[in-house]
Amino acid sequence: MPLPMPSRDAFRAALAEAPPPDAAAAAAARARDAVLTKPPGALGRLEEIALWHAEWLGPRRGPLRRPQIVVFAGEHGVAARGVSAFPSEVTGQMVANFRTGGAAINQLARVLEASLDVVALAPGLPTADFTARPAMDEAGFLAALNAGWDAVDPEADLLIPGEMGIGATTAAAALCCALFGGAPADWVGRGTGVDDDGLARKTQVVAEALATHGAALSDPLEALRRLGGREMAAMAGAIAGARARRVPVLLDGFICCAAAAALARATPGALAHCRAGHVSAERAHPRLLAALGMEPLLDLGLRLGEGSGAAAAALLVKAALACHHGMASFAEAGVSEG
Amino acid sequence: MPLPMPSRDAFRAALAEAPPPDAAAAAAARARDAVLTKPPGALGRLEEIALWHAEWLGPRRGPLRRPQIVVFAGEHGVAARGVSAFPSEVTGQMVANFRTGGAAINQLARVLEASLDVVALAPGLPTADFTARPAMDEAGFLAALNAGWDAVDPEADLLIPGEMGIGATTAAAALCCALFGGAPADWVGRGTGVDDDGLARKTQVVAEALATHGAALSDPLEALRRLGGREMAAMAGAIAGARARRVPVLLDGFICCAAAAALARATPGALAHCRAGHVSAERAHPRLLAALGMEPLLDLGLRLGEGSGAAAAALLVKAALACHHGMASFAEAGVSEG
Repeated sequence: MPLPMPSRDAFRAALAEAPPPDAAAAAAARARDAVLTKPPGALGRLEEIALWHAEWLGPRRGPLRRPQIVVFAGEHGVAARGVSAFPSEVTGQMVANFRTGGAAINQLARVLEASLDVVALAPGLPTADFTARPAMDEAGFLAALNAGWDAVDPEADLLIPGEMGIGATTAAAALCCALFGGAPADWVGRGTGVDDDGLARKTQVVAEALATHGAALSDPLEALRRLGGREMAAMAGAIAGARARRVPVLLDGFICCAAAAALARATPGALAHCRAGHVSAERAHPRLLAALGMEPLLDLGLRLGEGSGAAAAALLVKAALACHHGMASFAEAGVSEG
Repeated sequence: MPLPMPSRDAFRAALAEAPPPDAAAAAAARARDAVLTKPPGALGRLEEIALWHAEWLGPRRGPLRRPQIVVFAGEHGVAARGVSAFPSEVTGQMVANFRTGGAAINQLARVLEASLDVVALAPGLPTADFTARPAMDEAGFLAALNAGWDAVDPEADLLIPGEMGIGATTAAAALCCALFGGAPADWVGRGTGVDDDGLARKTQVVAEALATHGAALSDPLEALRRLGGREMAAMAGAIAGARARRVPVLLDGFICCAAAAALARATPGALAHCRAGHVSAERAHPRLLAALGMEPLLDLGLRLGEGSGAAAAALLVKAALACHHGMASFAEAGVSEG
């Protein structure tokens, strides 16, 4: 079966040619918002969320009916460098836990009434240690991008890309350092809970990676291939695939946002259909959100990944859309306007 | 029918004698939290919320099954002083809107799968203008406290007290000024959206109230009787009634928290069963939450009242409890611990 995105150029072109938001739907949503039985602006960011959703859904707009969570899992060669509080076999164990319904994201999917797909990229096969060589070869990178692109339900009305991968915060820190500059120490954090020695190892690993790959990292997608996990490439593919299909996306934590950042740096406007679900407790996530110009919906100290923060935030999207589509107007309810 | 709280003394005594949190349930919840398939603390405040809920529910603890929203409505004499962007008849019109399902809180109740009760206190009868005399007489105050106390479903597993009342942010500002000191300008804000002149009138009205009632305001419940709306007294009654029945409470915005603050100032620990659902866009709400020592779950710029911010936040309580009660342990899932 041919890949829908057979080359990096095809991927870039699809992203550059993705459709804009629907101006008519946005205008209709704004007009409706203005007559609902509440003081103007009194629902705060819930109103902005309803308008954002409408402009991407266009004629399909309505209450949240078909949210989709996709958890991408990948194994990181760099995990062998002692950068995580958990052993690398936990990646596969957690994939099994997702499939039997025992993880946090399973419970959140149930509360949200969302579908949950689990896509394990090359299970059992870690990427190369990126301190020595590129994490993925070109074929593997394209396979991961395409796995993400293909995972998006074109009829979904919200996509939540989640991830699992022991070692991933180190890869995300290296990628952010490549994309936005700054020192390794600006981008590393404690991930699942490493101690000070672990944090020092992460910083060292990121510094080595930058030295190894040098100027090749100036291309954002190349940086993603060299430093990212397969699950991060797949998330980038999914976010791009959602953009092409006008499916709005709620971003999760640091790793998800790092994958998204590669798209943002590759193509201006690539994340116009995205909102930040939450700011996590991972140290560099606020810095990354600021670099992306995004304000998170939630700030609850989560740092689990799996899409968990975005899935929690999606409950607010559901609430916002329920208000926007279900409330009476001043005229319908016979309420005096101010 | 005799009132359950026939006097202010009976009310104070009931509050002082309310049962403490269940230490055994809290310990069991902490032990369960520690073995769930996630790094320790990775669900951030969702973990704290699950422990809080468990310690108040005790043997009844479990997923969110029976959340209750009660919207109390009252009319404020002080509305005649031009302190709101909306005419005072909107209070009754919005009560009708709640009853026919057209308001924001109706949509949020549906998403949360919560019951929604609407309690209109003395409909059509404003309180006295508190710049001249006490807003309520003793009988009216007790009736409102009791209406709130009685409105709580003893089998609810979460209470969200909401309110509607044109003029209420002015009453809440006056009450906060009485309870916590500071200048009137520290506590007034734009409410539903008054202009600078309206804001100046609100500040003036609060200053007049403080001058009129003077030292009588040093007693918190007396301050609530003199300055509060009936809906605020009813919210205080409901929050106290929930405390007596071990029903945890999620507080809403500025007006709800002002009513709760009267309890907190009257009886230390009166709000141990409460968490702040959100911080609203009303200017003094952050100051009020700081005075109560509470961290809000949400900060989304809402300023609608009706219980809307707390109802949105309750979706996170539901998510937290779903994770706490539904996740597999490391042993159950065969996942290696860090």
